[in-house]
Amino acid sequence: MATDYCSIPSTAHQDPELVSRKSKSENTIVSVNGIPIGGKEVIIMAGPCAVEKEEQLVQTARIVRAGGAAILRGGAYKPRTSPYSFQGLGLEGLQMLERAKKETGLSVVTEVMDTRQVEVVAKYADILQVGSRNMQNYPLLKEVGQYPKPILLKRGMMATIDEYLNAAEYVMAHGNPSVILCERGIRTFESSTRFTLDLNAIPLLKERTHLPVIVDPSHGTGIRTLVSPMARAAVAAGADGLLMEVHYRPEEALCDGSQSLYPDDFGLLVEDLRKVAEAIGRSIFKLKK
Amino acid sequence: MATDYCSIPSTAHQDPELVSRKSKSENTIVSVNGIPIGGKEVIIMAGPCAVEKEEQLVQTARIVRAGGAAILRGGAYKPRTSPYSFQGLGLEGLQMLERAKKETGLSVVTEVMDTRQVEVVAKYADILQVGSRNMQNYPLLKEVGQYPKPILLKRGMMATIDEYLNAAEYVMAHGNPSVILCERGIRTFESSTRFTLDLNAIPLLKERTHLPVIVDPSHGTGIRTLVSPMARAAVAAGADGLLMEVHYRPEEALCDGSQSLYPDDFGLLVEDLRKVAEAIGRSIFKLKK
Amino acid sequence: MATDYCSIPSTAHQDPELVSRKSKSENTIVSVNGIPIGGKEVIIMAGPCAVEKEEQLVQTARIVRAGGAAILRGGAYKPRTSPYSFQGLGLEGLQMLERAKKETGLSVVTEVMDTRQVEVVAKYADILQVGSRNMQNYPLLKEVGQYPKPILLKRGMMATIDEYLNAAEYVMAHGNPSVILCERGIRTFESSTRFTLDLNAIPLLKERTHLPVIVDPSHGTGIRTLVSPMARAAVAAGADGLLMEVHYRPEEALCDGSQSLYPDDFGLLVEDLRKVAEAIGRSIFKLKK
Amino acid sequence: MATDYCSIPSTAHQDPELVSRKSKSENTIVSVNGIPIGGKEVIIMAGPCAVEKEEQLVQTARIVRAGGAAILRGGAYKPRTSPYSFQGLGLEGLQMLERAKKETGLSVVTEVMDTRQVEVVAKYADILQVGSRNMQNYPLLKEVGQYPKPILLKRGMMATIDEYLNAAEYVMAHGNPSVILCERGIRTFESSTRFTLDLNAIPLLKERTHLPVIVDPSHGTGIRTLVSPMARAAVAAGADGLLMEVHYRPEEALCDGSQSLYPDDFGLLVEDLRKVAEAIGRSIFKLKK
Repeated sequence: MATDYCSIPSTAHQDPELVSRKSKSENTIVSVNGIPIGGKEVIIMAGPCAVEKEEQLVQTARIVRAGGAAILRGGAYKPRTSPYSFQGLGLEGLQMLERAKKETGLSVVTEVMDTRQVEVVAKYADILQVGSRNMQNYPLLKEVGQYPKPILLKRGMMATIDEYLNAAEYVMAHGNPSVILCERGIRTFESSTRFTLDLNAIPLLKERTHLPVIVDPSHGTGIRTLVSPMARAAVAAGADGLLMEVHYRPEEALCDGSQSLYPDDFGLLVEDLRKVAEAIGRSIFKLKK
Repeated sequence: MATDYCSIPSTAHQDPELVSRKSKSENTIVSVNGIPIGGKEVIIMAGPCAVEKEEQLVQTARIVRAGGAAILRGGAYKPRTSPYSFQGLGLEGLQMLERAKKETGLSVVTEVMDTRQVEVVAKYADILQVGSRNMQNYPLLKEVGQYPKPILLKRGMMATIDEYLNAAEYVMAHGNPSVILCERGIRTFESSTRFTLDLNAIPLLKERTHLPVIVDPSHGTGIRTLVSPMARAAVAAGADGLLMEVHYRPEEALCDGSQSLYPDDFGLLVEDLRKVAEAIGRSIFKLKK
Repeated sequence: MATDYCSIPSTAHQDPELVSRKSKSENTIVSVNGIPIGGKEVIIMAGPCAVEKEEQLVQTARIVRAGGAAILRGGAYKPRTSPYSFQGLGLEGLQMLERAKKETGLSVVTEVMDTRQVEVVAKYADILQVGSRNMQNYPLLKEVGQYPKPILLKRGMMATIDEYLNAAEYVMAHGNPSVILCERGIRTFESSTRFTLDLNAIPLLKERTHLPVIVDPSHGTGIRTLVSPMARAAVAAGADGLLMEVHYRPEEALCDGSQSLYPDDFGLLVEDLRKVAEAIGRSIFKLKK
Repeated sequence: MATDYCSIPSTAHQDPELVSRKSKSENTIVSVNGIPIGGKEVIIMAGPCAVEKEEQLVQTARIVRAGGAAILRGGAYKPRTSPYSFQGLGLEGLQMLERAKKETGLSVVTEVMDTRQVEVVAKYADILQVGSRNMQNYPLLKEVGQYPKPILLKRGMMATIDEYLNAAEYVMAHGNPSVILCERGIRTFESSTRFTLDLNAIPLLKERTHLPVIVDPSHGTGIRTLVSPMARAAVAAGADGLLMEVHYRPEEALCDGSQSLYPDDFGLLVEDLRKVAEAIGRSIFKLKK
């Protein structure tokens, strides 16, 4: 039986195919409840880092809906560096997301960390997020590749563009064509920011793949005052969407409060983004009432 | 219920405790079938990158046994950058490892990538390896933390020492005190080598934790000619063991052939390591017949 | 005499003062022949990487003048990785820059690499450039600090924001208040681009210093197709200017041809930049006839 | 005249020649007052980071002479991140080095930072050091290339092996064949150490060049307790020498005190290094009385 793969030389370079512009020249538009991700309109996704309690989630959801977001983000399962940090509310958090969705009409993106969680998360979420630390968790990529839900695949903090495209290829090769890429900061020597948000990835990815590319300036910088300028820059560089942390009371957040936008700042930022989008011939997507 | 964790401020720094030298000053010795990892003797673990077929595995196992290894490495489940690369033999590979173990008396270390695989891998392996790309796969860390098998936890290619110790803390906090740390190269700007093997991690980790620290110079450099000098250096810097790729026919290997040692070179290297170990008051562990 | 500095503990952290926003809250505007760098208007600096011959320089200068540039860039002394690469025309190159200036009315920025060259370069240039590889060449920083010419100080490819501000402090502490900062790409693990242009540096620097901040997307990416999107993004993020490579015939360039813009693309880019600048309440500076 | 270089295509890759093993297969031995650097014997260079005062220098020199060093290090011109930090004693420091040399018989290595300083430093020093921040200061490399003194060229903290060899080629191409390479730590994401000492550079450089390769574990780690294990590792990996900071009273040092070895530790370390060197068939060079 070894003969099957013995013919594959170990040095063979396997280029990603399904994700490549060479195999499909026009942009892929991932549709989420009628929201077209990857088209002419730029999509705003916003919400708290973690789902903490119903009041926090629903109030924040209303704020981001009013401010211009189309999709609500919020983690029910949280990857935390320390085992002693808040690990997320799990199923209870998913149910809160469902209620917030009903209240506001926003679609929901939330993270899945374990192959055994995919089924339950897929029941509640409109988009399944695979986080930076799991970008090369191949069993997870294969598993989400088999679900009929769009995947938001974050770039690993130490992943090259090549490795990133190969990770997306895993999802597509297992049957799921709806992959949204998301630059979220890479690790460099610079320590003034938590990560170095790499906007070069936007035009680079756009050249090589037909998949939508969005940017997370909140995790990508880790500093509240950098979120707005970097969000504007991401749109100017060609991003198809933004994923941002907004909290109704940042100073009370259980995680990442220092990078969450205040409600008012979020509204002002979306106004700015509208102007930048228009300057390059695009617009910000708006949910109908 | 939110009150439970609302008391945890989001900026609280959670220091790892169980892994810390402060909580246990003497070195932890992880015993694997009587092989003491973390003691005065340096342990040699060697074998092919991937289990490819029975002949390859058993012949390589005999070679490394004769050359001085106590533990056989070999992957049945392989994390590969491309979905089109050889992904490992799975269960069949585990069964081949079992036969190689019976033939040679070597203990076996092999990788587990998915929470759903832990049970079956634990049935065949003496040590469960969690790979670099899964160092922050928290569900996997929690799962292996509940099995009564030693864990070889590789450092993430992008992980700081702090993050690495926190990952080990996940395993210990879930009940498993037998964690072996393994430096395997970090990602830097240097492109002459595949990764930059970071030997500084040896004394740094030894200061902060009581856990054993081994080094993988094969993946850490990706270049065959660098394996021997870096293996000698690792022992001189205080490593408790080495994990190295040896293949009975490197040019036929299905993966990582260019960094696998030839059988003869492996034997000569272990002789050199013996001298370096003695120079610093240690020795190389030898399996009894 | 040792007592003078023995009182300075070796761990004393010396924060930069003169460059700091704390010491001067309003933006510094560096005036170059009436061109206000650091004000509301965004300044375009463009030209070839190296001065190669008079025809190339003058023709390129006319092209960038027509396209919207106010300042001509071009190296007479070139820092090259190999001693066998073209090292620049030296004095002859400076004289060509002078003629191009007379022909077009553009001001001139050119690099100085050696303390012994400062005097002659200062005779011909309107702005003295200190390159990335010399950002911590302290004798050179001290020397240019004593000349009455604005300094364009490029960020070292491996310099933190703190180190960068300290380098600018060297120039100011030696008497020269006219320092222009320039992000030009940092070195990271990513190999798809020559460097990783770090736009996060713009808002970060703007928070900490009153000095103007410009961006070089040509060296910062090393890829022609990335120059335009990253230039737009730089303006959206708040850059006070752009330094770009344009060559009248990129395929004939003696260095860095693959990242030089074609004349037509440059004109179109400046039109785009005008719209992005307006979207954020700024404009592109235009030289009077 | 432009025709001269127009024939050189801008993409031409200029490989270093003079430094290459291909052009000279046997090891270059740089002889400094009879001390053979690059031969079978490993050379110890030690002393304070900066020359502070005569007592400090001469006492430290005696200590390192007694402990096994053959060459005294000590900076008279210091590259410091902040303009307000101690910048070195200059000429006075060079004269103190001369007196320490007479007192102890040690040869002297000291840094030169400016093309205008080369003449005076060459009058006092046996080896001219070009520091990490000046590795690509090409005018300085050309200048020291014209002096009949060995050059200790430190690797830039951001330099690839290719760039490093090209920097050495600059010195050789300008007439000076006596170049000693020195790995001193590269910049990575890891923040537990000041730099990441890259021992992989030793075997990599040894494959590609005939020049001697030494290691500076003091600057390379920035942590006193790491100096000894990394020095042992460097010798085991094949280094031809070590450059280490020793201070007669580290807690009083004007710079880098926290990484300077105590006198007693230095003596014990050299004893250890002797054993490691013997384990790999080498020895530590000893000055005759």
